[in-house]
Amino acid sequence: MEIPAIFDRPLDVLTFGETMLRLSAPNHGRLEEAVNLDVRVGGSESNTAVALARLGLKTAWFSRLPDNPLGRRIENEIRRWGVDTSRMIWDETPDSRAGLYFLDFGAAPRGIDVYYDRKDATITRIALDEIEPDTIAQARLLHLSGITSALSPQCAEAVRAMMHAAKAAQTAVSFDVNYRAKLWTPQEAKAELETLLLLVDVLLCPQSDAETLFGITGDGVTVAKEMRARYGMAAAIITCGGDGAMACDDRGDCAAKPFALTQIVDRVGAGDAFNAGVLMGWLEGDLEKGLRYGTAMAALKHTMPGDLLLSTRAEIERAVAGGSGGIRR
Amino acid sequence: MEIPAIFDRPLDVLTFGETMLRLSAPNHGRLEEAVNLDVRVGGSESNTAVALARLGLKTAWFSRLPDNPLGRRIENEIRRWGVDTSRMIWDETPDSRAGLYFLDFGAAPRGIDVYYDRKDATITRIALDEIEPDTIAQARLLHLSGITSALSPQCAEAVRAMMHAAKAAQTAVSFDVNYRAKLWTPQEAKAELETLLLLVDVLLCPQSDAETLFGITGDGVTVAKEMRARYGMAAAIITCGGDGAMACDDRGDCAAKPFALTQIVDRVGAGDAFNAGVLMGWLEGDLEKGLRYGTAMAALKHTMPGDLLLSTRAEIERAVAGGSGGIRR
Amino acid sequence: MEIPAIFDRPLDVLTFGETMLRLSAPNHGRLEEAVNLDVRVGGSESNTAVALARLGLKTAWFSRLPDNPLGRRIENEIRRWGVDTSRMIWDETPDSRAGLYFLDFGAAPRGIDVYYDRKDATITRIALDEIEPDTIAQARLLHLSGITSALSPQCAEAVRAMMHAAKAAQTAVSFDVNYRAKLWTPQEAKAELETLLLLVDVLLCPQSDAETLFGITGDGVTVAKEMRARYGMAAAIITCGGDGAMACDDRGDCAAKPFALTQIVDRVGAGDAFNAGVLMGWLEGDLEKGLRYGTAMAALKHTMPGDLLLSTRAEIERAVAGGSGGIRR
Amino acid sequence: MEIPAIFDRPLDVLTFGETMLRLSAPNHGRLEEAVNLDVRVGGSESNTAVALARLGLKTAWFSRLPDNPLGRRIENEIRRWGVDTSRMIWDETPDSRAGLYFLDFGAAPRGIDVYYDRKDATITRIALDEIEPDTIAQARLLHLSGITSALSPQCAEAVRAMMHAAKAAQTAVSFDVNYRAKLWTPQEAKAELETLLLLVDVLLCPQSDAETLFGITGDGVTVAKEMRARYGMAAAIITCGGDGAMACDDRGDCAAKPFALTQIVDRVGAGDAFNAGVLMGWLEGDLEKGLRYGTAMAALKHTMPGDLLLSTRAEIERAVAGGSGGIRR
Amino acid sequence: MEIPAIFDRPLDVLTFGETMLRLSAPNHGRLEEAVNLDVRVGGSESNTAVALARLGLKTAWFSRLPDNPLGRRIENEIRRWGVDTSRMIWDETPDSRAGLYFLDFGAAPRGIDVYYDRKDATITRIALDEIEPDTIAQARLLHLSGITSALSPQCAEAVRAMMHAAKAAQTAVSFDVNYRAKLWTPQEAKAELETLLLLVDVLLCPQSDAETLFGITGDGVTVAKEMRARYGMAAAIITCGGDGAMACDDRGDCAAKPFALTQIVDRVGAGDAFNAGVLMGWLEGDLEKGLRYGTAMAALKHTMPGDLLLSTRAEIERAVAGGSGGIRR
Amino acid sequence: MEIPAIFDRPLDVLTFGETMLRLSAPNHGRLEEAVNLDVRVGGSESNTAVALARLGLKTAWFSRLPDNPLGRRIENEIRRWGVDTSRMIWDETPDSRAGLYFLDFGAAPRGIDVYYDRKDATITRIALDEIEPDTIAQARLLHLSGITSALSPQCAEAVRAMMHAAKAAQTAVSFDVNYRAKLWTPQEAKAELETLLLLVDVLLCPQSDAETLFGITGDGVTVAKEMRARYGMAAAIITCGGDGAMACDDRGDCAAKPFALTQIVDRVGAGDAFNAGVLMGWLEGDLEKGLRYGTAMAALKHTMPGDLLLSTRAEIERAVAGGSGGIRR
Repeated sequence: MEIPAIFDRPLDVLTFGETMLRLSAPNHGRLEEAVNLDVRVGGSESNTAVALARLGLKTAWFSRLPDNPLGRRIENEIRRWGVDTSRMIWDETPDSRAGLYFLDFGAAPRGIDVYYDRKDATITRIALDEIEPDTIAQARLLHLSGITSALSPQCAEAVRAMMHAAKAAQTAVSFDVNYRAKLWTPQEAKAELETLLLLVDVLLCPQSDAETLFGITGDGVTVAKEMRARYGMAAAIITCGGDGAMACDDRGDCAAKPFALTQIVDRVGAGDAFNAGVLMGWLEGDLEKGLRYGTAMAALKHTMPGDLLLSTRAEIERAVAGGSGGIRR
Repeated sequence: MEIPAIFDRPLDVLTFGETMLRLSAPNHGRLEEAVNLDVRVGGSESNTAVALARLGLKTAWFSRLPDNPLGRRIENEIRRWGVDTSRMIWDETPDSRAGLYFLDFGAAPRGIDVYYDRKDATITRIALDEIEPDTIAQARLLHLSGITSALSPQCAEAVRAMMHAAKAAQTAVSFDVNYRAKLWTPQEAKAELETLLLLVDVLLCPQSDAETLFGITGDGVTVAKEMRARYGMAAAIITCGGDGAMACDDRGDCAAKPFALTQIVDRVGAGDAFNAGVLMGWLEGDLEKGLRYGTAMAALKHTMPGDLLLSTRAEIERAVAGGSGGIRR
Repeated sequence: MEIPAIFDRPLDVLTFGETMLRLSAPNHGRLEEAVNLDVRVGGSESNTAVALARLGLKTAWFSRLPDNPLGRRIENEIRRWGVDTSRMIWDETPDSRAGLYFLDFGAAPRGIDVYYDRKDATITRIALDEIEPDTIAQARLLHLSGITSALSPQCAEAVRAMMHAAKAAQTAVSFDVNYRAKLWTPQEAKAELETLLLLVDVLLCPQSDAETLFGITGDGVTVAKEMRARYGMAAAIITCGGDGAMACDDRGDCAAKPFALTQIVDRVGAGDAFNAGVLMGWLEGDLEKGLRYGTAMAALKHTMPGDLLLSTRAEIERAVAGGSGGIRR
Repeated sequence: MEIPAIFDRPLDVLTFGETMLRLSAPNHGRLEEAVNLDVRVGGSESNTAVALARLGLKTAWFSRLPDNPLGRRIENEIRRWGVDTSRMIWDETPDSRAGLYFLDFGAAPRGIDVYYDRKDATITRIALDEIEPDTIAQARLLHLSGITSALSPQCAEAVRAMMHAAKAAQTAVSFDVNYRAKLWTPQEAKAELETLLLLVDVLLCPQSDAETLFGITGDGVTVAKEMRARYGMAAAIITCGGDGAMACDDRGDCAAKPFALTQIVDRVGAGDAFNAGVLMGWLEGDLEKGLRYGTAMAALKHTMPGDLLLSTRAEIERAVAGGSGGIRR
Repeated sequence: MEIPAIFDRPLDVLTFGETMLRLSAPNHGRLEEAVNLDVRVGGSESNTAVALARLGLKTAWFSRLPDNPLGRRIENEIRRWGVDTSRMIWDETPDSRAGLYFLDFGAAPRGIDVYYDRKDATITRIALDEIEPDTIAQARLLHLSGITSALSPQCAEAVRAMMHAAKAAQTAVSFDVNYRAKLWTPQEAKAELETLLLLVDVLLCPQSDAETLFGITGDGVTVAKEMRARYGMAAAIITCGGDGAMACDDRGDCAAKPFALTQIVDRVGAGDAFNAGVLMGWLEGDLEKGLRYGTAMAALKHTMPGDLLLSTRAEIERAVAGGSGGIRR
Repeated sequence: MEIPAIFDRPLDVLTFGETMLRLSAPNHGRLEEAVNLDVRVGGSESNTAVALARLGLKTAWFSRLPDNPLGRRIENEIRRWGVDTSRMIWDETPDSRAGLYFLDFGAAPRGIDVYYDRKDATITRIALDEIEPDTIAQARLLHLSGITSALSPQCAEAVRAMMHAAKAAQTAVSFDVNYRAKLWTPQEAKAELETLLLLVDVLLCPQSDAETLFGITGDGVTVAKEMRARYGMAAAIITCGGDGAMACDDRGDCAAKPFALTQIVDRVGAGDAFNAGVLMGWLEGDLEKGLRYGTAMAALKHTMPGDLLLSTRAEIERAVAGGSGGIRR
């Protein structure tokens, strides 16, 4: 895989996927009694796009959104943080709807419950001819996730088509397996994703998904190697929760430990922030640097509410360098 | 129509219909920029049920709700205000969803925009055998609205079945036409509702709906008489916006002027509060009293946020008696 | 009545009375559904004291408060705005309590409901020997209201004792009748207040109280003259709601019209703000100026939430001079 | 003690006690500076009633409340969560008041300060003839706590009368000692409670109360056995803070360890949630199951704000089964 | 003046000026007591840019901002609404600061007080060589206001330079006089602005500024004609408060009446929204249409909080067509 | 150094320094996305003054503030907590401004970022003749910090003048080095502070400042001794972060360990609260007591939001005595 050079394409990274309004009760309250809800915007791919834009990469995200206040709320939020949203597909039919997800935050022994209300969201009706033909070729890297394929047959078809278009355009493809048990079964996921993996250049996969979907066990390096062996991607990065992340490419393998956290504000989106760091490193030809940045970015994400990593590159680099929790004044 | 006596039935009024979570931006903000949303609960029939319970009538509402935090949020809110919700039909399938509606409040020249996100809500899948057979017979009056029939064929069938069951059980039927242009066309509405109207004892109908759906024009009394002539209901009440409400039954006709309002906090639900006053009067055999109460209750509803009229009967009677806006201390 | 000169006393005005925590539902909500309450501090006499301090007068207020967070919350709020609170009587018994009042705001046809929860508040147990003997003599003017006498026999005794002490110290006495129907009957009020009125130099009285308690009817000037004739006070100021205020002293009578208001944010405390303007004018020997300032201050109070008038003297004088509602930038 | 079978009575559990409005400063702020207060509803017995209703038991709570917005706020909240409140005694006298308590939350080294303002609350004036004679016989179990007896002589008398009525009706009696040092002395408490304990079937008692009031020391099992030996109750459950809970009945003794908590949102009401689990287990004839459920419910209560446990039975059972703090999506 | 055609330039409108964080107390509170402040972003030129972008015009705004969270907060907000901010000049010196303004909202007799804290804001240090040479030529229209010239000599110089560059590039120039009494005297303003006016194609000027600065009196048409006569601009639009707006160009004169408003949420920014409508019309060669749109947009701005007009073009056109204040559902 | 006796002076402690509005995003949000900001008031010296007043000492703070809502907001807040602010120097020039600081709270690995916007604040223009000549002599102790000298040459001159006036008046001088890297370099700080240290009676200095500015290393006692040796102050107290605080005076040395904290709400101002405890102890002639109180006060500060320690003396003494984190009810 030859990564297109930065001056060859108007975009470093292009990504596509569903982004939802996220609604959660403030101050540890329960959804069931809430009289107001915090509104944020989240979707795995646009989360990663925002983090990439904060790192300084030229990044675009597109999706299919209803032309109503909720659809515009989503687009505006992502644009706000410097991501190019000009490729959006707008659905003007009156009954088109934005995907929603409700979050019930809880500490142990409760955990966090996600209630999706994304069925029949506008993105599920995407048609191939709605995507501008030369869109994919504008980017050095196309980033997708396994969530999209689970949304509808039309979405699955769009993912496949984009990956093939990427191959044709010599745009690299990164892919986060991101298995969601509330969307499809492991069997359904495996059937769809296995064919996609053959088109992937950079694989991002949670250790548990590797086992649930593909029956691959072992530590991160073992899994990464087995994934590369099976599907032939240039690089495989396996996230192992408290054990950190491990990666493997032609030059060998590397690993990064997670940061110790004193207080968790919001863990949602940490994986997507991690992905951004990794992809930046990979685009710079330094996967190990990617792991270091990704790990720092995931840690930073835990310290702020919402799906999005709103750190500057300077703040990220301070964390990479081992920033403390003190007061700077 | 002989109204069952109050000691003959465990309930004064039973009602059925969709109730949604209502989400609106606080403090005059726009949905498109909102970072938090006020959450309230609203549906025409449960709005009326709450107002009836506040008046002291034994009232029950049922619907079909998802067994998740949003469904429970809806049920709990209605129960809170004294309405019996024990007949609820719970849908435990994971992808069942609660209806939602988003409100963009605005003064002139903007107005209030309602964005429904109620398609495929759990109630649309109702099956006749989910309704306990003797439910209808427990009430003196069954209250329904034209909204429900618009939601799905199953809902329309349920409405028809309940009305027939009411006839069989000598339960009186009240019906608010409540035409919603975002749900169906006037032709669709007319086709469905005309057959229902023949089963109705108390008709509640906005003057504009009478024209749009049934082509009946004229002042409220004229419309009420024409409705009774066509469909044979015992009483017809026509709401005429700034001209107040007019009603007609075997004893003649009566009218009530709307209250002058100095400040409008939230006008949504005013019609449903009005209905509650009218139905109470009708059940007491005094339609004119019903108009007076209903008009006061509609005015009170304008002074508080949300779909629900949270006045006590004492407060309502103070308004009926011409209460002022001063300080009581 | 000779008013002590400003250099003769450390204080211009001393006042005594109950000040309560005021709890009200935000954003037009009802108490009955509130999940949070706005907390403010209000009491007729301290409201007036704050407005006097904002005008630049040396002002002190004292009361009897529980030595707990609620008592301190009250004292701190009044001190914050420049009123001397160093004469406070602190009750350290564990079950002493602060007076509370709950406010249910509403526009017509609802009005504003005040729910007092002030019974057995710490002030009701005041003992005469808790008041420093020379306290009254430190001020040019002692301001009291009819509310205090209604709180408990001990409070009534304290009011009487302070008025007599004022006579002895040549401290002028101003008195707002402030009849509160939720605290005592007109008969009780009349019996107690009539003897007090003989000790009063400046009477402030709503027109309606004059009728309810003392059976005096007529326009403000008529009432003021009759009051002076009966009880012999140096000046009588009668507030007549929408008709403004009228006053009468040895130099004749004067009147002021109320301001036209485009929006009412919170009318509570407007009368107390009015009193402050009047008392300032009277202390400067210009009752008509007092009416003009008082009327402006009452109007300004309507534009801000809470019992307290948080205007600067400059802002008040801009209103007195006929300030507009435009943007100053 | 023979527990009435579930089909013999309309209620599983009936409980009686004072429930207060709970006011606390949001976001770690202090009461002394608060400009708004969170409003919640709490009382030991109604807390337990709500948790029992969430478990699916038919539960009723009654009390004596003022017929004003605050009294209705309390009733409505408890009804909202599925507890039958139809037996409420309403006090319509204008000066009746709801009990209040103010909470000043703080972490170590501060702790949580409770400021009661419940003196002379409406419940303190209860008269025996206000309780419907057959109320107690409607339930399988009557649950009471030692707090109520401390409120007033009338309350103490009501508690005694209800316990005797329970004996007569073969309704089992559970009792939480719940000693409150701010309400009475250990001597007063012991004198009143000792006679009550002879009527109790299920005793719930903090280890420290057993020592302070009854001079019984030792680990939980020792205390439980000694309590049973002295007072003859069928079951005794002793809560030992960080050491968990221990119980003892005719079948032997059992114990449960507390859950490890990573974050404490609000610990108030944890003991009452625990009680609900225990009582459910006892009613099912399985005290050890009750301890397991109670311990999980106490842990869950720590993860959400307010006195009430707003978990579903499904959520509780997930915690009993050892649920994690992860994300479910 | 020949307006460049829409396909000739990448931008329809380019604008430059200071944009500040706007801090105001919520819910009618006073700055002096605020414990939290609403944060919004406002500046005359970026307000107009956002409104133009909402109308669908390709719009860019640039300024000079500190590279800190406040500077980025400003840029992100404007970008969010579809304005191109990629020409921003970032100041990375540690002591650079964003301009702030504090708003004390008040109804009559108070009015709205603006407290600027914009002295020495980063924009005041702008250097000509920081502006990309070909920036101006990218737009069909350059929009500036008289505020900028008042900020610093460097700003005044930048304005002059941009206007001359516009002439050179055949970019039309629009200019809002926008006199701010808190920034400079009428004499200073006149001296600077008169030379600029000779370079202006479209003048926007409040009637009162025309009098204060240039001594021109009379109705709007008279003023517009006199302005054109003196300074030779293609079009002059004069805003006359309650009398609406009048305009004059080569084709004659036209006028528009203001909308009647039932409730004013926030009047700040209404003039800037008006400007956007006018400029759109002028670019389309239809000044009268511009007045109609501008008037509707100014009215819509009054119905929402903040400086920015967050209406869609559809909403604006509904208002232009005479939309009502009813409920659309 | 002979400390003036408490009956000799009207004030125990007088302090002078800049106090700013502090603006921070609520609920862990970032400044860069904030739509509202919490407003608090903070400044090292007034923080200490408030804590001293809460301990019961007669305390005054003065500064130089703009006569606008922001300046008054600052003064009112400090006065609220019992600090005498009557010596304030008010700047009525329209462009005078209050210092601001923005806080971006974050846990590790982020930390807390302080963004000062205090340049050219009104205090920087202080003139010596604005300070009443006998101000310093009214206090037993004058407390200053190294921050003030960094603000402007006028401020530095004022600090020097006050210290000399203190010597003349036999007012003791305490001084917190409080080096702020964002205000000046170590070289600048050392040059200015070294001459001041010769006038100091009680030195408070972070261990790290001792090293950065004066090149003194070692444990706290070593540093304290070296400081005393070099500059001759009566007492030196060195704060060593997690190692606690160590102090040294003529009677020897002493130390205090920091409290273990389970949850940190807001660490800002902890050092200033510590200072208050130390100064109280020193004024009572018991430095070791001062350390114990100071350490408890610093710990308490961590449990509440804002710069100010809003504990009562009773609460502080409970912490000194080893208070727990339990519930007191």
